[in-house]
Amino acid sequence: MEEREISQAVIQRLPRYYRYLGDLLDNEVERISSSDLSKKMNVTASQIRQDLNNFGGFGQQGYGYNVKYLYTEIGKILGLDEKHNFIIIGAGNLGQALANYGPFEASGFVLKGIFDVNPHLEGITIRGVAIRMLKDLNQFIEENDIEIAVLTIPKTNAGEVADMLADTKIKGIWNFAHTDLKLPKHIIVENVHLSDSLMRLSYKIGHSTGRLTE
Amino acid sequence: MEEREISQAVIQRLPRYYRYLGDLLDNEVERISSSDLSKKMNVTASQIRQDLNNFGGFGQQGYGYNVKYLYTEIGKILGLDEKHNFIIIGAGNLGQALANYGPFEASGFVLKGIFDVNPHLEGITIRGVAIRMLKDLNQFIEENDIEIAVLTIPKTNAGEVADMLADTKIKGIWNFAHTDLKLPKHIIVENVHLSDSLMRLSYKIGHSTGRLTE
Repeated sequence: MEEREISQAVIQRLPRYYRYLGDLLDNEVERISSSDLSKKMNVTASQIRQDLNNFGGFGQQGYGYNVKYLYTEIGKILGLDEKHNFIIIGAGNLGQALANYGPFEASGFVLKGIFDVNPHLEGITIRGVAIRMLKDLNQFIEENDIEIAVLTIPKTNAGEVADMLADTKIKGIWNFAHTDLKLPKHIIVENVHLSDSLMRLSYKIGHSTGRLTE
Repeated sequence: MEEREISQAVIQRLPRYYRYLGDLLDNEVERISSSDLSKKMNVTASQIRQDLNNFGGFGQQGYGYNVKYLYTEIGKILGLDEKHNFIIIGAGNLGQALANYGPFEASGFVLKGIFDVNPHLEGITIRGVAIRMLKDLNQFIEENDIEIAVLTIPKTNAGEVADMLADTKIKGIWNFAHTDLKLPKHIIVENVHLSDSLMRLSYKIGHSTGRLTE
């Protein structure tokens, strides 16, 4: 499928479309109008039509969207029709929680290895995946065709690990370390700064009496 | 301090300022110009000046910002000068990982209780905090002055738990369930949809050869 240039704002929203369409599929809904989808998603129908037009548009006027087709096409755009091998660096609580989260695999994300610096953890397995030492990182990424590294390490170690990853063939980093990483531009970084998110919640709670602008 | 109306975009960025200023404090930096801060944060100096002007502006032309003062004031704006009692609902891997994450407490977020539906977990403690059953939720929130509920439950249970929370005095929900919650407007929801984030990373990896617009 031919794609146009897509704005960051649309990309930001795509996974949400994918999620809602998946729920519709689970409920065996075959077709949905932009108007019904807009009510479910709490966005305007015009926003939905505009967003989906970025991908050539999948709907027909007065006939609605084919849910399965749209779900599949958005999945392809998101790269979910291909396998993505990933590793987790940092076998602490969060690393273990992500390693134990099965549903990633259903979307094509396959956990191949877990890395840590603590020698006591070496060889322990989580869901059958062994914990390895960081010295083997480069070779492991090379040999196992690893695309994504998930960083669940303290910020004090993040710089060092980012430097190590910069020398590998890694394509993307899902960064949970509480710092912004310095990396070559060809490596994509998606940050999940949990503390930032909690602070935003705290702000909104403290300012929820009407002074907040949308 | 008198506050003006603040846009969502600025609120989105505030925790990041707080994080960088905290790092500067850790490194015993007392003053920083908007220009030096802009280089560190990879945003324009004019953006920084505009953002911080929302709070009356803390800098003096040619003299820079007082790091400690700015850090403290932004902390107050984010509500971090007050304690926020929270509970975690869902004692699975992610719930346990968040329960074990100590640094939240340093920012004033105090874990008071953990809830689950699995009776085998009742009474088990994590960091000294006991796991309780959901039937005690309402009373516990009332008696312990709980402001925030962290939802680390499967999406299939999220609707039911959201309904339970709607009847309590909870002020905010930090939602990790992979669905959007329906709640009364006075309850603030901050979503962390991890799968959405991973899909965005996947999209960016698949489209990193130049067709992406900023």
